[in-house]
Amino acid sequence: MSHGKTDLREKCGVIAAFNSSTAPYDIYLGLYAQQHRGQEGAGIIVCKESGEYYMHKDIGVVTQIFNDEILGKLHGNYGIGHVRYSTSGGCGKKDLQPLVVTHRDKVISIAHNGNITNAAKLKEAMEMEGSLFTTSSDTEVILHKIVRARSDSPIEKIRQGLKEVEGAYSLVLQFDQGVAAVRDPFGFRPLHVGKREAAWYFASETCAFDILGAETVCEVQPGEGYFVSASGLEHFTLDTPATPAFCSFEVVYFSRPDSLYKGRSIHNHRLALGKALYEEQPVDADIVTAVPDSSNSAALGYALASGIPLDIGLIRSHYAGRTFISPDASLRDVKVRQKFNVVRDAVEGKRIIVVDDSIVRGTTSRKIIKLFREKGAREVHLRIASPQLTHPCYFGIDMPDRQDFLVNKVPSDVLNTYLLVDSLAFLSPASLASVVGKSACQACFTGNYPMRVDPEGSRIEKRKETKDAQYAYL
Amino acid sequence: MSHGKTDLREKCGVIAAFNSSTAPYDIYLGLYAQQHRGQEGAGIIVCKESGEYYMHKDIGVVTQIFNDEILGKLHGNYGIGHVRYSTSGGCGKKDLQPLVVTHRDKVISIAHNGNITNAAKLKEAMEMEGSLFTTSSDTEVILHKIVRARSDSPIEKIRQGLKEVEGAYSLVLQFDQGVAAVRDPFGFRPLHVGKREAAWYFASETCAFDILGAETVCEVQPGEGYFVSASGLEHFTLDTPATPAFCSFEVVYFSRPDSLYKGRSIHNHRLALGKALYEEQPVDADIVTAVPDSSNSAALGYALASGIPLDIGLIRSHYAGRTFISPDASLRDVKVRQKFNVVRDAVEGKRIIVVDDSIVRGTTSRKIIKLFREKGAREVHLRIASPQLTHPCYFGIDMPDRQDFLVNKVPSDVLNTYLLVDSLAFLSPASLASVVGKSACQACFTGNYPMRVDPEGSRIEKRKETKDAQYAYL
Amino acid sequence: MSHGKTDLREKCGVIAAFNSSTAPYDIYLGLYAQQHRGQEGAGIIVCKESGEYYMHKDIGVVTQIFNDEILGKLHGNYGIGHVRYSTSGGCGKKDLQPLVVTHRDKVISIAHNGNITNAAKLKEAMEMEGSLFTTSSDTEVILHKIVRARSDSPIEKIRQGLKEVEGAYSLVLQFDQGVAAVRDPFGFRPLHVGKREAAWYFASETCAFDILGAETVCEVQPGEGYFVSASGLEHFTLDTPATPAFCSFEVVYFSRPDSLYKGRSIHNHRLALGKALYEEQPVDADIVTAVPDSSNSAALGYALASGIPLDIGLIRSHYAGRTFISPDASLRDVKVRQKFNVVRDAVEGKRIIVVDDSIVRGTTSRKIIKLFREKGAREVHLRIASPQLTHPCYFGIDMPDRQDFLVNKVPSDVLNTYLLVDSLAFLSPASLASVVGKSACQACFTGNYPMRVDPEGSRIEKRKETKDAQYAYL
Amino acid sequence: MSHGKTDLREKCGVIAAFNSSTAPYDIYLGLYAQQHRGQEGAGIIVCKESGEYYMHKDIGVVTQIFNDEILGKLHGNYGIGHVRYSTSGGCGKKDLQPLVVTHRDKVISIAHNGNITNAAKLKEAMEMEGSLFTTSSDTEVILHKIVRARSDSPIEKIRQGLKEVEGAYSLVLQFDQGVAAVRDPFGFRPLHVGKREAAWYFASETCAFDILGAETVCEVQPGEGYFVSASGLEHFTLDTPATPAFCSFEVVYFSRPDSLYKGRSIHNHRLALGKALYEEQPVDADIVTAVPDSSNSAALGYALASGIPLDIGLIRSHYAGRTFISPDASLRDVKVRQKFNVVRDAVEGKRIIVVDDSIVRGTTSRKIIKLFREKGAREVHLRIASPQLTHPCYFGIDMPDRQDFLVNKVPSDVLNTYLLVDSLAFLSPASLASVVGKSACQACFTGNYPMRVDPEGSRIEKRKETKDAQYAYL
Repeated sequence: MSHGKTDLREKCGVIAAFNSSTAPYDIYLGLYAQQHRGQEGAGIIVCKESGEYYMHKDIGVVTQIFNDEILGKLHGNYGIGHVRYSTSGGCGKKDLQPLVVTHRDKVISIAHNGNITNAAKLKEAMEMEGSLFTTSSDTEVILHKIVRARSDSPIEKIRQGLKEVEGAYSLVLQFDQGVAAVRDPFGFRPLHVGKREAAWYFASETCAFDILGAETVCEVQPGEGYFVSASGLEHFTLDTPATPAFCSFEVVYFSRPDSLYKGRSIHNHRLALGKALYEEQPVDADIVTAVPDSSNSAALGYALASGIPLDIGLIRSHYAGRTFISPDASLRDVKVRQKFNVVRDAVEGKRIIVVDDSIVRGTTSRKIIKLFREKGAREVHLRIASPQLTHPCYFGIDMPDRQDFLVNKVPSDVLNTYLLVDSLAFLSPASLASVVGKSACQACFTGNYPMRVDPEGSRIEKRKETKDAQYAYL
Repeated sequence: MSHGKTDLREKCGVIAAFNSSTAPYDIYLGLYAQQHRGQEGAGIIVCKESGEYYMHKDIGVVTQIFNDEILGKLHGNYGIGHVRYSTSGGCGKKDLQPLVVTHRDKVISIAHNGNITNAAKLKEAMEMEGSLFTTSSDTEVILHKIVRARSDSPIEKIRQGLKEVEGAYSLVLQFDQGVAAVRDPFGFRPLHVGKREAAWYFASETCAFDILGAETVCEVQPGEGYFVSASGLEHFTLDTPATPAFCSFEVVYFSRPDSLYKGRSIHNHRLALGKALYEEQPVDADIVTAVPDSSNSAALGYALASGIPLDIGLIRSHYAGRTFISPDASLRDVKVRQKFNVVRDAVEGKRIIVVDDSIVRGTTSRKIIKLFREKGAREVHLRIASPQLTHPCYFGIDMPDRQDFLVNKVPSDVLNTYLLVDSLAFLSPASLASVVGKSACQACFTGNYPMRVDPEGSRIEKRKETKDAQYAYL
Repeated sequence: MSHGKTDLREKCGVIAAFNSSTAPYDIYLGLYAQQHRGQEGAGIIVCKESGEYYMHKDIGVVTQIFNDEILGKLHGNYGIGHVRYSTSGGCGKKDLQPLVVTHRDKVISIAHNGNITNAAKLKEAMEMEGSLFTTSSDTEVILHKIVRARSDSPIEKIRQGLKEVEGAYSLVLQFDQGVAAVRDPFGFRPLHVGKREAAWYFASETCAFDILGAETVCEVQPGEGYFVSASGLEHFTLDTPATPAFCSFEVVYFSRPDSLYKGRSIHNHRLALGKALYEEQPVDADIVTAVPDSSNSAALGYALASGIPLDIGLIRSHYAGRTFISPDASLRDVKVRQKFNVVRDAVEGKRIIVVDDSIVRGTTSRKIIKLFREKGAREVHLRIASPQLTHPCYFGIDMPDRQDFLVNKVPSDVLNTYLLVDSLAFLSPASLASVVGKSACQACFTGNYPMRVDPEGSRIEKRKETKDAQYAYL
Repeated sequence: MSHGKTDLREKCGVIAAFNSSTAPYDIYLGLYAQQHRGQEGAGIIVCKESGEYYMHKDIGVVTQIFNDEILGKLHGNYGIGHVRYSTSGGCGKKDLQPLVVTHRDKVISIAHNGNITNAAKLKEAMEMEGSLFTTSSDTEVILHKIVRARSDSPIEKIRQGLKEVEGAYSLVLQFDQGVAAVRDPFGFRPLHVGKREAAWYFASETCAFDILGAETVCEVQPGEGYFVSASGLEHFTLDTPATPAFCSFEVVYFSRPDSLYKGRSIHNHRLALGKALYEEQPVDADIVTAVPDSSNSAALGYALASGIPLDIGLIRSHYAGRTFISPDASLRDVKVRQKFNVVRDAVEGKRIIVVDDSIVRGTTSRKIIKLFREKGAREVHLRIASPQLTHPCYFGIDMPDRQDFLVNKVPSDVLNTYLLVDSLAFLSPASLASVVGKSACQACFTGNYPMRVDPEGSRIEKRKETKDAQYAYL
């Protein structure tokens, strides 16, 4: 995607391991493989059967947070882990996951991918009963609900605790007896079951199993869950009936191309999106080029379907690092040039089709097209392998305010001028549905939310920032 | 005191500031001045009247944890701070203070010096009602009690919340309206009120006011408290009547010599202890020498009373730093030599009186006496400016297990041989009382505890380590 | 290239800037763009006309070494920079570049890409005359030669100083008057001239100009140099006549695809290598797939020439980070899985052609092919877009010992079995020459070195490690 | 001394170890014990007989620079170490010692305490012959002279190399064969020989031997040296005849009280200075108090001689740490309050004699006296246990410019008013001589320099800062 770092952000990835002698390393690797789902912070908690727990979490990327010394101090053969998306503010430290409590001499921890739409209401009710909260995270609300459930069975605690919880949640939990995975009835976010010899794993994406040399067993179906303990793997169902609405944006952009969705690779779905895009929005040109790496598959699909040769017109630098504060106008636009460079002879004097996976604000797209123009592209046709973004997501993706979406910001008749393109076209919602399935959630493209949502009720943090007391833990 | 780093540890120091444009810096300086009360970690939370809170806490000493950049990010004109004692394990991160919660859109934070003797019982009862705890600290129990109290008045919340809380507590708290200080009815730990122009301060020791250029107003009396807000300073009283029992060990060792106790400097009290020690335990010798720096005052008192000249027989290095793991027997005892060195010509061929403030295990004393012997001291008479330690403290000082006290470990008839001294004598409890006051707590010397104590009930952590689930946050 | 991190390493990249108000930032960006040429360490020195110099260099990657604070302390409008390749040992700190000396109140600094083949001999001779050396780098030998040259003119110092220096050098130098660039008569390593408004730049690769928004002016030709000062840009020629022998491995693997070689992009050359590879070594299959990212262009060329569709069979993770020490056999091969993952449905049941740019030891290739096999590839045909590596390089690329090259290690009749492939084929030296030019150096493929080389004489460091005193600066 | 951190600075301390299985740890401990001689940076180089050298040096204090991990990587049984004083600028990194060169496959390293008065001239001459210098340190000039000496014998190299070197130098050197110590003919700076079993040590101060459990063998006499190798300890003499002029300021302030000077402790000499001060400058008062810790001994001497009781009127904080940038006038003077606090009841309403060891600028003295006044001291009599400072030192102590000395800055008739004292008196040079010896250098008090000095010629750095090119290595 040609959007900037702060345009769209996945809210987290999770992993759990059970009965593995290398559990802390497995969880670390599972987080490493899912690093793209969250780069603000990460955490691991592991446990030995003797009841000793060890946790480490911090701000940063997993390779910065964990090293041999720290992994060597995390003793245990089961546990859970979490990667968290990046925020600009300093509010993050207290909200790092896994969250953990001790309750009546038992330790319970949780890691969450998603967003609870009635978190504020649930929290207020519990506060009236004397409960205290230490984070501004909706995950703590889920944790309180589950811990307060009056049962000693982990499965029953989860089932009772989630009864009133609404919204998106793909959870992994750790109890003294074992680990659990559970997914909301809509199944907005992915969640899978994996296995390596006697060890079991739960993870958001299947690429986490591949890095472990584990096999992918199955998806955790919407509204269902698993608990694995010394007694083996148990399956359970939530009370609310499932009404599947998987996030189509996972396919379009977020998930890794080598992860599976419905048994096929995300890459394969994106190839199909690229092909459908050509069918709907053909254009004649000399080459097709991608905005690497997220639109590589869609661009290849477009090239294969059209017969127009693929070329590598844009190179992406993979050396991460903060951009410095440019002291001078002559270094303007250096941010996009730190990330991308055009291959002149691939585009000079040519008519080029640039395939991108999606457009959010359009700011970065505009700068990239400018780079192509500076290096001599004669015609630039921008093709987007998803529909126009128009509505915010309440189910786990952090999007900009509605008015910041490109199509809400720039009148349609000057879009081409704004983006410096000769033509611009998007994939239709119908074509997207033909690839990702009719049940998939397309709310951000269409405004058809699969459930009633109170925008205020869904965001504990936002609400407080404007009205009430809040603290930042540097 | 000639004991090692891990022999005795004060459990923390606190500071609060209100209505100061330099509040974060004031709190930092107040923690810096009280660094001796806790070197494991420290934290500061400050607030602006707009309801924005900023917190930073970490493991280490205050000069490592805070710097200009971090202090510059802590915006606010009131707040509280805490220094914490050092533990060997890694359990500390989650127990760093101030602890903070948001409850019904209000932020409440707390910092605590002391030890709650019925914490385990109170916690269990609240867990049965659905409360969750995230630390293994007794301070969180106090916080829950106070937050759950059904009143909107901070003073009433504190008075109600503390009704069932037993043990030692000198607390500072921060509410949206202002800051409070409150001290248990025994007044085990110190707590004072200070002022600089329009700003108010609360701190464990008065040296925290001196560094700010503030004046010491008064002590917070046992069983009493203060709350300062835009409405000014309010005084309040707890329900339980006060039965003062100030910790005599604060005078003997813990407090800084320049801090005040009952209006006189700790140094002045220690001078008196040294004089009383000579009255009780005179001995003829060529010089009196201290074990710097904690027994400097007592040694001077002994010298002045006896007329035997003071000399500087022992030099202490003040460059802090971890001792490395010695790779070889030839570097044995290097730990004590990194801290102390004997001035040969001050002691060679002489009869010396070594005055120390107290003896815990005696291990370090023995090594220091050995250094004196190696440099040619002819006679060594060890005089201790407090009675023999025999019982553990349940009111906020971390002591070794009972059997590890020198007098419980080494038979009295071989004590001199063990310590390599020609004579050894302690101050009597009666003489100590004549200096620190009859009401002062001498439980660790005499076993006469001022309140009934259940050793198990007073220690949440210890109990769990042996029996139940527990987690370490690296 | 499917080789591991330690198989082949470029020896450094250089950059110089003159007359730029953002010189320290320009140099930083130029190093960032050339990060692939050296990841062990980096350094920048800049100068103001007043004669104040500021330098910073350290171990790590450029984004770790430099930040806003440090860049803000580097004051100057001209200077030079260097990135250095990674070594396993700790010897690096003292060898970081730029090297700088003050000589008769003048400051002279140097940054070098290449390898001096008679460094040991030159050094010994100067030591006999009383010179002292502080590094084990051949660059220091060049610096001594240039500084000792009896002239006040920078150009004359360079021309005289380099007279006896043999081997590969693309140098940038900083004098009080300005900066210079000079390239050995063979032109083994790249070196270019760029310009942005009134500012001049010299850099190893042209991608360094692109990130600055500067234009590429020309190549510094073999045996030639430039000096830019307040008097403008001056061109000069070395005494030794030029006999061009550009490193073909720069085209095959090292240079960035968006950099220019002889006016065409490296990407374009690699496309041609892929096409030539198909012409020489055709094979029937269902898809062509690359080993990303270094063989993307060659694979595309092979696909375009053959008409066999390109697919994305292998995904590469770009989150850098040290691999931990695996505690268990179940995590064996995790290193390659941290870097690569196969897209199952792109390869399952298919005949695949894997195009790679080169093979050194073959260890990583073998593991990658194994990943393809595990995910169900039916046939695997490995095609290498360069000839077999057989001889070490003495001109600036750090290669393994001769016996460690795959073809010297594994008998040719079991190569397929060893690599787990159905067929294996390399590009011929003749075809390589048809793309990179007949004059290009192919010594590592053919053993035909363009100059006489004494393997011992070329390596100061190696020689000492075995025979003589040497020190490591941690 | 009541002067600030930047008023006076010792230029470094040195240590060498030979034939010790714990050499790196010995050197570390020796530096730790001599930390007061230099807090800017430190370094260690050690060697194994096989000719492998390992070095580590960095900016900071020794406990920050070295830890178990780093000490574990320094392999060797002999070597040298250095601590360096603090500078405000960033010029330090390149000047850290030991300096090391490899010359004709031999490694030679050096650590220096002192100042070479003809360094600029010697350097210029060698540069004319083609030598290059990489630091702005006079130590590098010594190193070049010694390495260039045409002999293979370390002793001969030292003797020849030092022939033209003038000024102050107490050196330790490391050769492939062993380590050496040598002291200039004036013996400005201390240097001693120690021994523990089969191991030999050289160190600036004898406290470095005490921490190792080693015994002090003797002083290295002015103009003499020692070399220890497998052949044992050899003594040698420089060509220039000795004219002893030991720095009296080492006795007054710099050296540790537990170190030896002419067989007696520095503490003992300072006691004598305090007694002599009372004899010369008696005054009636209620108590004598020190400015801890440097004037503790002198204050005790004054008290013993006068019969006026010593009391502890001033407490010093030993928690090191940078002072933050005070955001507000209300925190003015916080710097002195971070270091010192007055014990009110020790001074309130009393006539006090404050004994300090020396006064440089008087700025800090003034602030301390102000603290005494604020806490109610009725009369303050300041007594200085050394003469007035009037002239700069060229022999290894970094002093402020002449006009910044208190007595050159404040007219004598308003000195008391400026310092807020009732009376002020200094020790006479004659009395100082009676304690430290007639030969001792008192140039900073009297202007009688023991050798001709060209102020310009003695300072390579200073000269360049104003006139010529210079670089800062951040």
